[in-house]
Amino acid sequence: MKRRHLLTGVAATPALALLPGCAAFAPNEASVGTGDLGVVIERSRGTLALVNTSSRTLLAEIGGLGDLSHASVVFSRDGASAFVFGRDGALTRVNLLTRRITARLMQAGNSIGGAISQDGTLVAAQNYTPGGVKVFDANTLALVADIPAMVDGKASRVVGLSDLPGNRFIFSLFDADAIWIADLSDRAKPVITKLGGIGHQPYDGLVTPDGRHYIAGLFGEDGLALVDLWDDAPKARRILAGYGRGEVPLPVYKMPHLRGWSVAGRHAYLPAIGHHEVLVVDTTTWQETARIQVAGQPVFVIARPDGRQVWVNFAVPDYHRVQVIDTVSRQVVRTLEPGKAVLHMEFTPRGEAVWISSRDDNRVSVIDTQHFVTLATLTIDSPSGVFFTSRAARMGF
Amino acid sequence: MKRRHLLTGVAATPALALLPGCAAFAPNEASVGTGDLGVVIERSRGTLALVNTSSRTLLAEIGGLGDLSHASVVFSRDGASAFVFGRDGALTRVNLLTRRITARLMQAGNSIGGAISQDGTLVAAQNYTPGGVKVFDANTLALVADIPAMVDGKASRVVGLSDLPGNRFIFSLFDADAIWIADLSDRAKPVITKLGGIGHQPYDGLVTPDGRHYIAGLFGEDGLALVDLWDDAPKARRILAGYGRGEVPLPVYKMPHLRGWSVAGRHAYLPAIGHHEVLVVDTTTWQETARIQVAGQPVFVIARPDGRQVWVNFAVPDYHRVQVIDTVSRQVVRTLEPGKAVLHMEFTPRGEAVWISSRDDNRVSVIDTQHFVTLATLTIDSPSGVFFTSRAARMGF
Repeated sequence: MKRRHLLTGVAATPALALLPGCAAFAPNEASVGTGDLGVVIERSRGTLALVNTSSRTLLAEIGGLGDLSHASVVFSRDGASAFVFGRDGALTRVNLLTRRITARLMQAGNSIGGAISQDGTLVAAQNYTPGGVKVFDANTLALVADIPAMVDGKASRVVGLSDLPGNRFIFSLFDADAIWIADLSDRAKPVITKLGGIGHQPYDGLVTPDGRHYIAGLFGEDGLALVDLWDDAPKARRILAGYGRGEVPLPVYKMPHLRGWSVAGRHAYLPAIGHHEVLVVDTTTWQETARIQVAGQPVFVIARPDGRQVWVNFAVPDYHRVQVIDTVSRQVVRTLEPGKAVLHMEFTPRGEAVWISSRDDNRVSVIDTQHFVTLATLTIDSPSGVFFTSRAARMGF
Repeated sequence: MKRRHLLTGVAATPALALLPGCAAFAPNEASVGTGDLGVVIERSRGTLALVNTSSRTLLAEIGGLGDLSHASVVFSRDGASAFVFGRDGALTRVNLLTRRITARLMQAGNSIGGAISQDGTLVAAQNYTPGGVKVFDANTLALVADIPAMVDGKASRVVGLSDLPGNRFIFSLFDADAIWIADLSDRAKPVITKLGGIGHQPYDGLVTPDGRHYIAGLFGEDGLALVDLWDDAPKARRILAGYGRGEVPLPVYKMPHLRGWSVAGRHAYLPAIGHHEVLVVDTTTWQETARIQVAGQPVFVIARPDGRQVWVNFAVPDYHRVQVIDTVSRQVVRTLEPGKAVLHMEFTPRGEAVWISSRDDNRVSVIDTQHFVTLATLTIDSPSGVFFTSRAARMGF
């Protein structure tokens, strides 16, 4: 079944357009909930695959989403709508029950993801071109705030955007070596707090599960920036400075991601850029307590919801492998090869299974995290990101 | 509108009966998700109030649930169904979208709550009469396992039932001073592990958010029992033994509850039975690190999802008050009086608000946890427990 959903009549400047989605199958019965739904990005054809994590099945494909080559997704508070941030700057809202696009907007020229506010009323997009952050009303997609991220007359690319308690957003300015906090508790008067001295070239960021700490990875140096958001006047400080000292850094094949919670118990597990290592950091002292040798340059380092395991995937040429770290012994306890070009992993809400996308095998594997048995494989075209609706109830997702 | 839903034709022995529920309003549109739904127990008339946490409204009332005087609720994996454990031993499944009872079973003579397995396929009830635990298939409510909890020829009352990873359940035997773990990963062959030496009269239990530790409160002595479930051979040990030493215990007006996560960051906040105190315990050493004076005998001690605050309600005669502890300063930062006979509190999934039931004012208050402003009040008949569907995605709920 070939799909053609051209984004006609939508200007490059922000403009709201309502386009029909593609409902490939019958909609759900009204008696079926949204708690076990999810979407997989089919990156090469601009399509969302709608999946169910209870039946482990593909329910439908919804097309017409444009360039999804680095797309990410957040969910509405009720779990029924997915907000899809396309690489081409499109923001699309898809209803997972009717399986249709309910709103679509070209909000930038090049976008790299987004976030949804604590109360679910605001959706924010982080942009490369023209840079900055735009905030939209989740119901209408009307523009609420435009935050250009201008420093010394130049708009910075924005990365590491995350929600914070109190309808605030935090993000990093790749080109301006800064971390900004935008408080939209009064949406008519956003208040921006700007933190400098964070180190060089923040490339991504995460908020710890408790919403207390923001960590930005640095591309321009060995180290990370840390902000304690519970301080009365939050400021950035450097942690793990010079973690690669004495080693020859490798060429970096793919920028790691700090998205997802890589905090397990009191320790954070972080990718070492340009090294075949995962760094273990004590979140009470923020000192390195261990480093774990892994099979390649880590991309995603994600804790199972209970924190007993951390799963790692890798950049080229090691991206057919996934490794599992046991957080008690701090050993790699399993190496899996679920398929070619593993791009993403997503745990089911309570962590009994993980869904792994293997782009070049057009496969998503569902793996039991206790016994490492493959429970199901789904044929999905060039799958990249996997996102479950349970994210709606969590901070930093 | 008076409701009459008599439980006719249902024997005291397990028997499945399909009864019509009471849909007071039109069902939801198919395009609305279940992520922001919840229920409030209307204890005096056997009715569930269906609420929406985005609009902060009462959507419907669903009657015919029997004796809900100490009822609790778990949710199906998709968030569409509530499993209601009635004090009278009834287990009722209610679909929140169609607003109807879809299955109902008298599974015991006196029941005190239940749990749902990690993968959502099994529902377990803990019973006072005849004691023990019964496990049911979540889809059919067919009996899967009957665990009588017999010790020395006597069936013990069961409390503190919680799900554990791997389709296991853990629970405490009030009359037999024991903690049992039932492994139903092979549902045809449940495997029971029995732990003794836990102390006297466990009255409730909780699993930490990471699923690692089980804590049972003890009614028969000052102290708690702790099990590290990540040990190869888990065993119980005593913590906080003699926490009331040198103090005259007060009469206990209401048994505290350990349900809900009272773990914030690396500390657990626990009610001191018979004292006007909350105990603070370091979860790495399991030593007491502080005790906080509060306005009465604590009943629920619940951490906001981010752990920055802990909210406490109280037994008679102080049950018109709620206190808020700031976990950084460990001070009571606010005392609220939301209504008479506060019985329960439930945080919205990401913690921006808390819903508090005041039974004797027939009121549920929705309070902003940042500024302590009352955002809404709902008129609900004799409200007790408040339960949101986001529990489906969390361990220990």
